[in-house]
Amino acid sequence: MPEPTRDVLETFENPYPGRDYRVESVCPEFTSVCPKTGQPDFGTLTITYVPDALCFELKSLKLYLQQYRDHGAFYEDVTNRILDDLVAVTRPRWMKIVAEFTPRGGIRTNVIVEHTAEGFTV
Amino acid sequence: MPEPTRDVLETFENPYPGRDYRVESVCPEFTSVCPKTGQPDFGTLTITYVPDALCFELKSLKLYLQQYRDHGAFYEDVTNRILDDLVAVTRPRWMKIVAEFTPRGGIRTNVIVEHTAEGFTV
Amino acid sequence: MPEPTRDVLETFENPYPGRDYRVESVCPEFTSVCPKTGQPDFGTLTITYVPDALCFELKSLKLYLQQYRDHGAFYEDVTNRILDDLVAVTRPRWMKIVAEFTPRGGIRTNVIVEHTAEGFTV
Amino acid sequence: MPEPTRDVLETFENPYPGRDYRVESVCPEFTSVCPKTGQPDFGTLTITYVPDALCFELKSLKLYLQQYRDHGAFYEDVTNRILDDLVAVTRPRWMKIVAEFTPRGGIRTNVIVEHTAEGFTV
Amino acid sequence: MPEPTRDVLETFENPYPGRDYRVESVCPEFTSVCPKTGQPDFGTLTITYVPDALCFELKSLKLYLQQYRDHGAFYEDVTNRILDDLVAVTRPRWMKIVAEFTPRGGIRTNVIVEHTAEGFTV
Amino acid sequence: MPEPTRDVLETFENPYPGRDYRVESVCPEFTSVCPKTGQPDFGTLTITYVPDALCFELKSLKLYLQQYRDHGAFYEDVTNRILDDLVAVTRPRWMKIVAEFTPRGGIRTNVIVEHTAEGFTV
Amino acid sequence: MPEPTRDVLETFENPYPGRDYRVESVCPEFTSVCPKTGQPDFGTLTITYVPDALCFELKSLKLYLQQYRDHGAFYEDVTNRILDDLVAVTRPRWMKIVAEFTPRGGIRTNVIVEHTAEGFTV
Amino acid sequence: MPEPTRDVLETFENPYPGRDYRVESVCPEFTSVCPKTGQPDFGTLTITYVPDALCFELKSLKLYLQQYRDHGAFYEDVTNRILDDLVAVTRPRWMKIVAEFTPRGGIRTNVIVEHTAEGFTV
Amino acid sequence: MPEPTRDVLETFENPYPGRDYRVESVCPEFTSVCPKTGQPDFGTLTITYVPDALCFELKSLKLYLQQYRDHGAFYEDVTNRILDDLVAVTRPRWMKIVAEFTPRGGIRTNVIVEHTAEGFTV
Amino acid sequence: MPEPTRDVLETFENPYPGRDYRVESVCPEFTSVCPKTGQPDFGTLTITYVPDALCFELKSLKLYLQQYRDHGAFYEDVTNRILDDLVAVTRPRWMKIVAEFTPRGGIRTNVIVEHTAEGFTV
Repeated sequence: MPEPTRDVLETFENPYPGRDYRVESVCPEFTSVCPKTGQPDFGTLTITYVPDALCFELKSLKLYLQQYRDHGAFYEDVTNRILDDLVAVTRPRWMKIVAEFTPRGGIRTNVIVEHTAEGFTV
Repeated sequence: MPEPTRDVLETFENPYPGRDYRVESVCPEFTSVCPKTGQPDFGTLTITYVPDALCFELKSLKLYLQQYRDHGAFYEDVTNRILDDLVAVTRPRWMKIVAEFTPRGGIRTNVIVEHTAEGFTV
Repeated sequence: MPEPTRDVLETFENPYPGRDYRVESVCPEFTSVCPKTGQPDFGTLTITYVPDALCFELKSLKLYLQQYRDHGAFYEDVTNRILDDLVAVTRPRWMKIVAEFTPRGGIRTNVIVEHTAEGFTV
Repeated sequence: MPEPTRDVLETFENPYPGRDYRVESVCPEFTSVCPKTGQPDFGTLTITYVPDALCFELKSLKLYLQQYRDHGAFYEDVTNRILDDLVAVTRPRWMKIVAEFTPRGGIRTNVIVEHTAEGFTV
Repeated sequence: MPEPTRDVLETFENPYPGRDYRVESVCPEFTSVCPKTGQPDFGTLTITYVPDALCFELKSLKLYLQQYRDHGAFYEDVTNRILDDLVAVTRPRWMKIVAEFTPRGGIRTNVIVEHTAEGFTV
Repeated sequence: MPEPTRDVLETFENPYPGRDYRVESVCPEFTSVCPKTGQPDFGTLTITYVPDALCFELKSLKLYLQQYRDHGAFYEDVTNRILDDLVAVTRPRWMKIVAEFTPRGGIRTNVIVEHTAEGFTV
Repeated sequence: MPEPTRDVLETFENPYPGRDYRVESVCPEFTSVCPKTGQPDFGTLTITYVPDALCFELKSLKLYLQQYRDHGAFYEDVTNRILDDLVAVTRPRWMKIVAEFTPRGGIRTNVIVEHTAEGFTV
Repeated sequence: MPEPTRDVLETFENPYPGRDYRVESVCPEFTSVCPKTGQPDFGTLTITYVPDALCFELKSLKLYLQQYRDHGAFYEDVTNRILDDLVAVTRPRWMKIVAEFTPRGGIRTNVIVEHTAEGFTV
Repeated sequence: MPEPTRDVLETFENPYPGRDYRVESVCPEFTSVCPKTGQPDFGTLTITYVPDALCFELKSLKLYLQQYRDHGAFYEDVTNRILDDLVAVTRPRWMKIVAEFTPRGGIRTNVIVEHTAEGFTV
Repeated sequence: MPEPTRDVLETFENPYPGRDYRVESVCPEFTSVCPKTGQPDFGTLTITYVPDALCFELKSLKLYLQQYRDHGAFYEDVTNRILDDLVAVTRPRWMKIVAEFTPRGGIRTNVIVEHTAEGFTV
């Protein structure tokens, strides 16, 4: 199984770079595999960002996230890694990911990560 | 198919210009066409503004938005364009549009744009 | 049909003037008439205020709002007017009205108005 | 604008014809045009059926319904017509359509139509 | 104030009389006046019927119901009367009205009335 | 404290005795006292009936129920007793009471009682 | 750890044995232990019955259910056993238990059991 | 009927006085009597505070609030009075009461009061 | 990729075979692959049955369903197949599966299948 | 019964210590015992933190919380104690616990505690 790669992410030019605006994508069909038990995990990712020069293309986002389907990943790790990948490719002014995972052992867990470009004020 | 035009937007005089107040219109029947696939897109627009000298007339807002029914437009583009048109016609002290589109490929996307007139503090 | 008048509004002395506290009244049975079409409009008014020397009496508020039942009034106009009347009669430290009207032509509209007495900080 | 036609509907062989089972498709993106006012109408169609020899293919159902986008049609008429078309193409043991339209003039309307093949008991 | 009259109700020919199907109209903007106290009452009417030869036209239904705006009427009375009027004008195979009134004195009340044409089985 | 009495219940003539129809009153402000602990109990009563010659008047229903405010009564007992009183006074074709009490000791309890007049079929 | 016993269940005489009525108790604080893993399980029990000569006393029901806190029991087993115990003690005309357990391994499970006394028709 | 008194309120020592933390108690079973009409009023009190040296004991809070059951009190008055009593007895760093009353005359009313000890910053 | 096999399903003896009772398992983490597009599909399966001699073990049900993770399957096909497998292994008196799939192309689809053993009446 | 101990809590290295991010775990299956009455209490704990060098391992969190199952503890006490234990073991930049307990005596209570490491700004 190859590692998930940010190379599949495609971008397009931000059509309104003169304005700070937010794009929010809710992805309820995220699934990966627990590296400890080998059991599948499920979650909803909400990705919000203020684009700078580039926006990510939604179909490529879907394909990027599908790479995790057979990939072993802890909650904290995978959420931070996805943020790193999306930031590297789109260089946004600001980005936040809220990952909400389904219950395991009677406990459900969310991970919330955020990136702010230098000089940008939320 | 003609381009959507802001010319159909009608305004009336703000009856209480001495007060900063908000008007919020929720439009759940917005539809346009994806320029890539030719498939219809659907969404809900929530337009909020603080009027200055002019308010937009609601029936003309409906007719303005109906122009997008057969118009190809990306999410990020169409939301910013509608903001530009409404700002150009009503010159508000502040305006915000939240556009919530229905799911495509298992992902649903919102675009949030905002305009503040110079010298106005939210 | 006589004009709605603030004269029907009754007040009583604020029992705790030494404390800044809020009173919030939700009135889901507001109805007026569209001056353009003659058709009835319906809405919910939420009136929140910090009383100073006077509180408004709830039964008189009901009678005051019932005056609009056969009165022609645009959304922006009627909401600001009700704020003006309530402020004139009770002289509150702060007051806010959120008026949520039912859908017309596929669009539903809210108007949010606010008054702050000089020297008061929310 | 050509009339909507059932010719775009595609079918596939029912993989389990030996069992009476139900398929339910919820289509929240239905839109047509009011023949009286020329204004767009919006609704959600819920199509439920017990297939006999044939099932309808979902992508062709989407394309079939999109034909109504610029088509003038009364609520009662269009719902019955869609039932007739789907019954003609798939010859189901039983089929029901619930069409829920968005509010017009403060009233929202649903139309519920049903077809049962001779000899079938629900 | 004239009495509400069924004369304002308009009908059109049932486009599919060969099929027993249901039409359901939800009217959340019904208001009348309490004959005892003179205070306005508010409610939601849900009218469901199986048309025979005739359907009622929705705009005329709206105008018919608006006649009760200044009309004094007890809950039980007004609901039965509206059923009688709609039955008289459309002669349906079956009709049901659920009227849900807003709370008075801490009690909220619904009235449910039904009419079945001779020979029709629900 | 006097015993609750059905004497306070007032009735009026059923305006449509020729039709079997239902009246449903929801009373969320019922309170009585636990005869064991002396602690107040709270509940919502939903009273539904098909009137015969008489309907109960709503204001008198409110006063009738308020008699239980300082009255000791077990859940099963009080619900059956209220049914008996309402049946005795209005002689309905059918009546049902659903009483939903708030949680005690981590358990919440409902009591559902029903009366059908001889010869009446629900 | 002693076995749970029906001996702690107390009853009182049905105050209205002449009428078939239902009592429904919702118990959201049920917990037992998985006999395989030793891990605690959690669930909500909804117990509905038509009493005959006896009703169960609610406080004793609470104490009866608390006996399962440290008791190992499979879902199917424990729900049927509680039904058997309650039936043995109260001899109802009819009783039903719906047990809704919290998710384990991404699956949540309900068990629904029912008892009808001979000669009783629901 | 004796006046409600704060004397029934019991306290215990704050087990973690070194930390600013919040305790929030929701009391949906509050009832008092309208001093004008003699009719019972119902509401939900949400009491939130940051304890200093003392916490209030919950059973005594219940008994304290039950004193209002037969006590005549206006909404604004009773909410402020309860805050005064709880502040006098527990001397909290901060306390807030939100009182939500059930609808009267089609209007429902909330009262929100707050107390901050000198030197404490929320 | 091996075919999903019913061999992984484990059973245990029904502890109460003398009673007809229902077990309901809700599995919100079902995923398979669309055989046409290769894209993952997601859904919630609700499996309800009346056990006869055998119950299925929940952990083995989870492992059985996980076999579909990389398996190509149409909605109608996969739901019927799972019913066949569960019926073959547990020989229930009655079983029903409701499969609710997430939206594709603006349409969401449910498949409802049912099996009744000869001689059993629901 | 031994005292609950933080020794069962296991940690792992924060995989992204260079970023301030939040982990939120919702635990709806918390139960302890009331030290006064010996009756079980139930609640939902929501634990949110910004990890520094260490994250807590979720399975060990579950085992840690299960220690309270037979442990007598007041609401205010147990919530603060759990915060102390989790802070001692993971040394987070910031941590907050919201504990929501089920109703007792008609009142439900939440406790909200928070810890901020020196030099960290929320």
